[in-house]
Amino acid sequence: MRRGSLHGETDLNSVTFSSPVLEEIKLVEDRMRMQADESHSDLRAALEHLLAAGGKRVRPTLCMLVGNMLGAPLDKLVSLGAAVELLHTATLVHDDLIDGALLRRGLPTLNARWSPPATVLTGDFLFARAAKLAAETDHLPLMKLFSETLAIIVNGELTQMFTSRGLISRDNYYNRIYAKTASLFEMTARAASMVSPVDDEITESMRDFGYQIGMAFQIADDILDFNGEQSAVGKPLGSDLHNGLITLPAIYYAESNPGDPDILSLPSGGWTHTENMTRLVEKIRASRASQQAMREAEQHVDRALAILDSFDNCAERHALESLAKYIVDRKM
Amino acid sequence: MRRGSLHGETDLNSVTFSSPVLEEIKLVEDRMRMQADESHSDLRAALEHLLAAGGKRVRPTLCMLVGNMLGAPLDKLVSLGAAVELLHTATLVHDDLIDGALLRRGLPTLNARWSPPATVLTGDFLFARAAKLAAETDHLPLMKLFSETLAIIVNGELTQMFTSRGLISRDNYYNRIYAKTASLFEMTARAASMVSPVDDEITESMRDFGYQIGMAFQIADDILDFNGEQSAVGKPLGSDLHNGLITLPAIYYAESNPGDPDILSLPSGGWTHTENMTRLVEKIRASRASQQAMREAEQHVDRALAILDSFDNCAERHALESLAKYIVDRKM
Repeated sequence: MRRGSLHGETDLNSVTFSSPVLEEIKLVEDRMRMQADESHSDLRAALEHLLAAGGKRVRPTLCMLVGNMLGAPLDKLVSLGAAVELLHTATLVHDDLIDGALLRRGLPTLNARWSPPATVLTGDFLFARAAKLAAETDHLPLMKLFSETLAIIVNGELTQMFTSRGLISRDNYYNRIYAKTASLFEMTARAASMVSPVDDEITESMRDFGYQIGMAFQIADDILDFNGEQSAVGKPLGSDLHNGLITLPAIYYAESNPGDPDILSLPSGGWTHTENMTRLVEKIRASRASQQAMREAEQHVDRALAILDSFDNCAERHALESLAKYIVDRKM
Repeated sequence: MRRGSLHGETDLNSVTFSSPVLEEIKLVEDRMRMQADESHSDLRAALEHLLAAGGKRVRPTLCMLVGNMLGAPLDKLVSLGAAVELLHTATLVHDDLIDGALLRRGLPTLNARWSPPATVLTGDFLFARAAKLAAETDHLPLMKLFSETLAIIVNGELTQMFTSRGLISRDNYYNRIYAKTASLFEMTARAASMVSPVDDEITESMRDFGYQIGMAFQIADDILDFNGEQSAVGKPLGSDLHNGLITLPAIYYAESNPGDPDILSLPSGGWTHTENMTRLVEKIRASRASQQAMREAEQHVDRALAILDSFDNCAERHALESLAKYIVDRKM
């Protein structure tokens, strides 16, 4: 279902969208690595480990592409890109600790090797360095936006923690994925525009672009949890549902099958893996629910692409288009 | 030993040093309370709980007194004072979690009532709000200083975590108490001066003032751990030593009694409460070590008082003098 999507491109990969900024992404990584230079050697090693576990640097790439397209100075973009990626990394470090996750992207998480206290503090250290990098853009509204976004992310996680497991609610879902993912994409594109010589209207367009691809990114992630190749996703299929987290495919399934006894029997209190849930995951996989969810992700991507239409034809715009499409075409 | 100190005042209390800024401290507390207004109700309750557990607001008081003395605008001081106190609170929340502490200032810690995940996230939320408040001073160098200070605090905690238990080293001790306590006092006084209409020389004096009282504060704290009234301190006497943390009284004792078998037998690896340690705590209590340590704290206070001599005689200067003296005269 995820192949041959609306956008007709099946071979998108990270090279397509990051090629105009490969050099700049190296600068961002160097800048991130520098943040532990004067710190304890174990902390330096932890940062190296986290950087090596890297991923595709989607957020710094977004930052660089938007900023380059709009004429932002390189030094500010490098600071911002490093700040965003470190903030993202810090939230992952605390998330993995909270979830007790032992692997991320196929590599051991920090908490799989460190004690919980060291993991808490490493996350705190990364927050501190992210804030310092954000301050190095010398742009106060950006600093405020940055701290506001961190508060949104954390408040979202707390709200999720206090929400009943098994809640089937679109509102709850959209709020959650905005806080968890879209808010940082939104901030990244908006901030890259804020340090560029452009007017507020452009910044608002870029904010919306970031928002749209961020929402698409998380919906696609939630679909992969049901339909991905298990080896690529790195966790059991349907793990969100097994953890009591109702994502968009499950919502579509529940809307189409309101009387399904496995839906009706979802516990709202104590949550345990049950045979019912394993069966429900299979039914969702066999249904059109993921396809319907993917249509929503694609709608977000279409809105993002429409925003780009008003910008000049340039390498960065094309790369941003590739990035938007990649988000719904990726396999992990 | 702590009564009738060098400064000859035994009845100092918080009223003396905070009286010129009681109204402003209320504004700071309101500002802190507002930070969870749009957040999940459990988070609001957690912040209320933390504010109620309050303490003497020494750091916001320092901020207000320095800023008022130097003519800083009230709005910036309120933002800064709230930022500093929330940052301090955030580090306490994570510390208590890491230490597994169940009480602080006689009230249950957050982690005594919440799950560890909720506690991690609440600390993160407070960091985010502290950063936002710091940004609201609209002062970029202050923002950078703020994030730099957070990094110093966290790096200090990590270094402590990775340092062998039982290490008897003055260098290690001074670095540790700077990172843990003095860095935030230093930053507070410096930042309050930075938002005031004064030149760099004054700011440097105020930075040094904050540094001196911060060092004195932590040394006094470490003495209280041995010599305080247990009910006021809220934990067993000598708890630092029982946890493998060698503070200044123990260092003085070890220097005077290098052959004491209980000193020689301090383990450097795995650390467990032993009878030897209980005996060692008693020997340190009975020795002159705490008195010697108090002399060091008083030297810092004297340096702080000397710095104030060059400032005009005003209510704030007198209150800062009281604050400096209170730090070595307090009972908890």
